[in-house]
Amino acid sequence: MLELFDDERLDHLLGENLRIIQSPSVFAFSLDTVLLAKFVYVPIQKGNLLDLCTGNGVIPLLLSKRTKGDITGVEIQQRIYSMAKRSIEFNKLSTQIKMIHGDIKDMPKELGHGKYDIVTCNPPYFPTPKQDEINENEHLAIARHEIHCTLEDVIRVSSQLVKQGGKVAFVHRPGRLLDIVTLMRKYRLEPKRLQFVYPKAGKEANTLLIEGIKDGKPDLKILQPLIVYNEENEYTKELQTILYGEDSKEQ
Amino acid sequence: MLELFDDERLDHLLGENLRIIQSPSVFAFSLDTVLLAKFVYVPIQKGNLLDLCTGNGVIPLLLSKRTKGDITGVEIQQRIYSMAKRSIEFNKLSTQIKMIHGDIKDMPKELGHGKYDIVTCNPPYFPTPKQDEINENEHLAIARHEIHCTLEDVIRVSSQLVKQGGKVAFVHRPGRLLDIVTLMRKYRLEPKRLQFVYPKAGKEANTLLIEGIKDGKPDLKILQPLIVYNEENEYTKELQTILYGEDSKEQ
Repeated sequence: MLELFDDERLDHLLGENLRIIQSPSVFAFSLDTVLLAKFVYVPIQKGNLLDLCTGNGVIPLLLSKRTKGDITGVEIQQRIYSMAKRSIEFNKLSTQIKMIHGDIKDMPKELGHGKYDIVTCNPPYFPTPKQDEINENEHLAIARHEIHCTLEDVIRVSSQLVKQGGKVAFVHRPGRLLDIVTLMRKYRLEPKRLQFVYPKAGKEANTLLIEGIKDGKPDLKILQPLIVYNEENEYTKELQTILYGEDSKEQ
Repeated sequence: MLELFDDERLDHLLGENLRIIQSPSVFAFSLDTVLLAKFVYVPIQKGNLLDLCTGNGVIPLLLSKRTKGDITGVEIQQRIYSMAKRSIEFNKLSTQIKMIHGDIKDMPKELGHGKYDIVTCNPPYFPTPKQDEINENEHLAIARHEIHCTLEDVIRVSSQLVKQGGKVAFVHRPGRLLDIVTLMRKYRLEPKRLQFVYPKAGKEANTLLIEGIKDGKPDLKILQPLIVYNEENEYTKELQTILYGEDSKEQ
């Protein structure tokens, strides 16, 4: 039995046989989040995976299709945590995916240091604006702005939670690239794989995906560019494959 | 009257109405260098432009087609400096382009601090190898390895030579990205434009182009990806345009 509140709806999650609760006024996942779930390295057979700022749980849900490992998601907003929790129950994934309602800054103390093979995070992208400029919708404001956690919080906490040799992956805006790599090195997460996402051929990148290894050796690779839309404003074949799999039908 | 020594030859310089002396055993310019000359911002009507580690002068020659400003090249190897000097004389560009035979590390003292609007450099890419692994051809070894100048030398010297608000552009390998941006910030060159060059679609980047502004405000843009070869191993249309201009004939 599934309860849906207010303007919540039960969406299909891409090509996967999964459903997810979303709400236009509270939280809906973005393409960036999906790309992060597809970008990050995951161990197939076992391991501990952790998704910080998990929102409605889209990364844990997608990762469950890539690994048999144990997945944990952490979300600070009670209402959005509840959406994630109900989605996981609806998909009968409560054995594999655990949801925690809490502040990521408390997690190293709560979950222990160095326990995770993989940590992912799609953090709030924007600095906290002045009080009178802030999004009046508190749910959206917290998800988008660095109100409860800064980029440095996210990177420091990720580094504390991941094992030595474990992997940490983030998605963010290219304008923060230098802050991200500087902070990653400060917290001993050596950047290893970097991929830029371009809305269209010939346009500047609007998203970056980055993966680092705790105490890894310096050796950064820039992966192939990812272009989202073709000239006809449809997803490129490449993006369709990422979203819907190798056997996705061409349009 | 042009003198050519040993295995030197007088090559045509791409689509430009320019000739350049090259030698397979001493120095021949690379695609990377040409891309840097096309990537960097240049003032059109006037200004002081400086190219460090200029080799046979390909960047000054190409820049002379983009600006009426004064261009200086600095090359440490006497033999290669001589090639650059003769090429410039052959092209009747000695009024606009000046060549200096010297060590870039001496240039701030020799040329003065903060005198240049634009500084470019395609530095040696590789750390100095052990003595027994070094390229036996000294000319090529010096051009490729950090024997006479390290990446930090290049970035420090560039920062000293450029004006406040002036631009500095480098070409290098993606594996050095983090070193480059860290050193640029250390020497107050704020990275503003970053472009990756991929040998083919679907491959990792093998070259990066980066431009910074002395004491600029943080705001990094990742420009469109540059793909060199198409599926048929010919230059892509995009690269042909860069190399040969807008009106280049299609193959």
